[in-house]
Amino acid sequence: MKQSEMLLPTLRENPADADIKSHQLLVRAGFIRQVASGIYSYLPVGQRVLRKVEQIVREEMEKAGSMEMIMPALQPSELWKETGRWNNFGPELMRIHDRHGREFAMGATHEEVVTGLIRDTVNTYKRLPLNVYQIQTKFRDEKRPRFGLLRGREFLMKDAYTFHDSYESLDVAYDRMFTAYQNIFSRLGLNFRAVIADSGAMGGKDTHEFMVLSEVGEDTIAYSDESSYAANIEMAPVVATYEKQNEEPKEKQKVETKDMKTMEQVADYLGHTVEEGIKSLMFKVDEKLVLVLTRGDHEVNDVKLKNLYDASYIDLATEEETRAAMNAGFGSLGPIDVPENVEIVADNAVQALVNASCGANEDGYHYINVTPHVDFEVSQFADLRFIEEGDPSPDGKGTIVFAKGIEVGHVFKLGEFYADKMGAKFLDENGKAKTMVMGCYGIGISRTLASIVEQYHDESGITWPKQIAPYQVHLLSLNVKKEEQKELADSIYHTLVAAGVEVLYDDRKERAGVKFTDSDLVGIPLRITVGKRASEGVVEFKERLTGEQDEIHQEELLNRINAFYK
Amino acid sequence: MKQSEMLLPTLRENPADADIKSHQLLVRAGFIRQVASGIYSYLPVGQRVLRKVEQIVREEMEKAGSMEMIMPALQPSELWKETGRWNNFGPELMRIHDRHGREFAMGATHEEVVTGLIRDTVNTYKRLPLNVYQIQTKFRDEKRPRFGLLRGREFLMKDAYTFHDSYESLDVAYDRMFTAYQNIFSRLGLNFRAVIADSGAMGGKDTHEFMVLSEVGEDTIAYSDESSYAANIEMAPVVATYEKQNEEPKEKQKVETKDMKTMEQVADYLGHTVEEGIKSLMFKVDEKLVLVLTRGDHEVNDVKLKNLYDASYIDLATEEETRAAMNAGFGSLGPIDVPENVEIVADNAVQALVNASCGANEDGYHYINVTPHVDFEVSQFADLRFIEEGDPSPDGKGTIVFAKGIEVGHVFKLGEFYADKMGAKFLDENGKAKTMVMGCYGIGISRTLASIVEQYHDESGITWPKQIAPYQVHLLSLNVKKEEQKELADSIYHTLVAAGVEVLYDDRKERAGVKFTDSDLVGIPLRITVGKRASEGVVEFKERLTGEQDEIHQEELLNRINAFYK
Repeated sequence: MKQSEMLLPTLRENPADADIKSHQLLVRAGFIRQVASGIYSYLPVGQRVLRKVEQIVREEMEKAGSMEMIMPALQPSELWKETGRWNNFGPELMRIHDRHGREFAMGATHEEVVTGLIRDTVNTYKRLPLNVYQIQTKFRDEKRPRFGLLRGREFLMKDAYTFHDSYESLDVAYDRMFTAYQNIFSRLGLNFRAVIADSGAMGGKDTHEFMVLSEVGEDTIAYSDESSYAANIEMAPVVATYEKQNEEPKEKQKVETKDMKTMEQVADYLGHTVEEGIKSLMFKVDEKLVLVLTRGDHEVNDVKLKNLYDASYIDLATEEETRAAMNAGFGSLGPIDVPENVEIVADNAVQALVNASCGANEDGYHYINVTPHVDFEVSQFADLRFIEEGDPSPDGKGTIVFAKGIEVGHVFKLGEFYADKMGAKFLDENGKAKTMVMGCYGIGISRTLASIVEQYHDESGITWPKQIAPYQVHLLSLNVKKEEQKELADSIYHTLVAAGVEVLYDDRKERAGVKFTDSDLVGIPLRITVGKRASEGVVEFKERLTGEQDEIHQEELLNRINAFYK
Repeated sequence: MKQSEMLLPTLRENPADADIKSHQLLVRAGFIRQVASGIYSYLPVGQRVLRKVEQIVREEMEKAGSMEMIMPALQPSELWKETGRWNNFGPELMRIHDRHGREFAMGATHEEVVTGLIRDTVNTYKRLPLNVYQIQTKFRDEKRPRFGLLRGREFLMKDAYTFHDSYESLDVAYDRMFTAYQNIFSRLGLNFRAVIADSGAMGGKDTHEFMVLSEVGEDTIAYSDESSYAANIEMAPVVATYEKQNEEPKEKQKVETKDMKTMEQVADYLGHTVEEGIKSLMFKVDEKLVLVLTRGDHEVNDVKLKNLYDASYIDLATEEETRAAMNAGFGSLGPIDVPENVEIVADNAVQALVNASCGANEDGYHYINVTPHVDFEVSQFADLRFIEEGDPSPDGKGTIVFAKGIEVGHVFKLGEFYADKMGAKFLDENGKAKTMVMGCYGIGISRTLASIVEQYHDESGITWPKQIAPYQVHLLSLNVKKEEQKELADSIYHTLVAAGVEVLYDDRKERAGVKFTDSDLVGIPLRITVGKRASEGVVEFKERLTGEQDEIHQEELLNRINAFYK
């Protein structure tokens, strides 16, 4: 493609609203343009990269036995009412009505449509399992769209759905899709982790998120420095063993700690480390009051607490509720003399404490020399804290490190949730009706594109991985007014195109500096510059990522390009 | 793909709401399923055909110099207000508001978005011309969605837009796109015509519609039986010459024609042919009253009348308005003794009449022996009637024939309409700001798919053209319980797939009859049946379209397949 005929508008300045590199560079380099908040057009180079990402996704989906189809964006509200999500999904679900007043959801996801389809077309175990996917535009009315393509309101997703006659069959498909996802993100050149995630409110079983490691990510991942173990920090179990202090329990003693609010203040005053204090927090777990104890330096993981009680709802109790139950405020809670309607649970680390401090359930007072089993009992010890950097990895290999991640994919064993709500049944081998078992599998295509830029850029622009670059070669003719330069560049252009190389040819009447700056910004992996030595047939050959460059004769070009892309 | 793992639900009965073949067959053969009125899912075989159609469109667009991009479905109302179409588009434009109350149009077309984009990114003649296209989902809230994919509410379109610094540049792009469209519809195997169409209210210049000839089409095309000339019947000029009757004008005479309403009744009563009567219709042309005369057997073409007056609005006058002006009702109008505020125009054919009849502007009376220029004058004679079958073709070659057509494509010289409204300007070589000139070019991808089925089916199902069939070969294993049949079919399947042939392999535990019926319905061009002669390595090879079949040895298969698809 000749750049003079190309819609490739570059900008020297960052857009005012662009806070992160992928947003800045994709706009500045002419890949996307905002149409409205969280809504973008993909210009030709952007579309080319999108299509290459899509192609990799398609190939791996086909390998995993998934069939492409396409479902509509307009989805009748009746379907969403069957699963209850018409009311539960919240304002992210955009709603529209047609000229006859019928309500539709703008597809934010397609569980309802696909489950309706399979319910209506498949009714025997003989047609199961099924695995279908689509690459389709999704609509979600984010409250605060931001970070360019990372959190948009209209975006491209690959979503797949599997249907099964058993959980075993689901497990097989899940593993295949998991492998496909690993292949996809590996082929895209991304540094990512498959992260154990929370299966949340939908009642599913296993679920993994695929996270691209990036400082701009909104999620924190705990991963092993020696194995593939990775989990959302909410989900990572703590397998640390705590050595009990080799110390005799002393008599507990009440001391005044007036006006001291934090664990640190109390510890300082009492002359011990934060680790030697017991932190007590009051939670409401399905309306039951639970006092949760952790070591002073640890944080309660409310997902673990919720799972411990298999609760549908948990939250911190208010100061009023706490005072009504304990006769003391937040700063002076402790496990001694707790009324019977309050249950006490403690993190495993608490069990190893001897002669620790804790609140005295009396405002302005703490106990010192408090020891579990001596001075108080709890209904159970459990893993209730967040994992921390330096903890041993739960798989026994290595030590936990934290990183920020961008969620680009999600695989999820839905189980029977949707099939049950929507009556998607099949007849088994014995002619008995059973509910189908489902899995769902998503990849944010446009978000993946942004993630790639987050990992592939430098101070001059984007440094596209070769497999998804918009073009393979950026050919620059430095001075189109010099006949020998123009002739050589034209000739190279036609030779390369004829050889099947994807070439963007900067034949514009612009200064050399403009062309170099634009070329670095757009980030095509190879740059061929036709300049002063054109009459000798010599051009500059440069790799964008490494900056390595040399002068070669034009006859060597095809070999060099093929070697690079082999 | 193994059919046992495929989502390919076939039906024996036509869906109740499906009136035309493409709708019936696409649903019955498992290509599409309705989600809501005018809204469909494309199942895997449907998606495969769609993607092949898209691929042909992409190739021809690239050849025509068009660059792919993608614009959003959610379009801010502000853009549509700039062109006035927010109010003018009517209820087909679906509207939605976000959680903050901002209004959006659901993209029914993308002139506003693309013009806004080019306005904001291109400002010099050096970057023009530009040609961009997208393949994208469109939303139009049709009042009565029907005919399956032919008139849907969510559908797939290819839309292209060109931007120019002059009308000459637009002409060049228009011709290239016109050629691309001819290539596309030819490659798709369609019997179509490029039809001269009405440029309508948008103030454009040339426009052509690409019409697939089909009985179920909603438009009537007038085309030459000897040349490529084709036009919407509204647009076809009449070049017929009318020979004046060789007869002396007689004295006009008023006769009673009580209770006679139609031209035929009057002609019968007066003892002459309908062709010898003058039909008079009263129109309102931009509020002016115009009496339009045609020969009794001809029909007024209101597009021609509108163009004659360069009017923004025309309609038939009401009976009340007519009576107020003429003192007579519809059945007795004529050109004699017409008040001065009513202008008279006549179709060219009227000029050749001698001693004709016409209404007397007195209820229940006609004149006979009326002759133009003798008994009345008109302000002008012009081509004002619809062309008819048997008229000479306007290009001088052949005779006009009528056919019904399905509009699958449209190319349109928009001119400056949108660029002017939205301020899309550029600086020319002299630094002077000028308004851009635009063209737009659409193809209904999903509608094209349905059109193909309208032209390619028989009583048993679809007969896909080879270049867009969902698979190249349908391999049937008649009895999967017979080991030698299963083994041979499996072996052929793997051999063909390894050779790059697209195979759908019916390995289902179904009766042979079911497999044959489904195979005919789905319509894959080649069928290979493994049956009783499996032990000899002999299979049946059948062409779906012609029904030709023979038995061949499996070793000949690849050659035969390659010969068919060469």
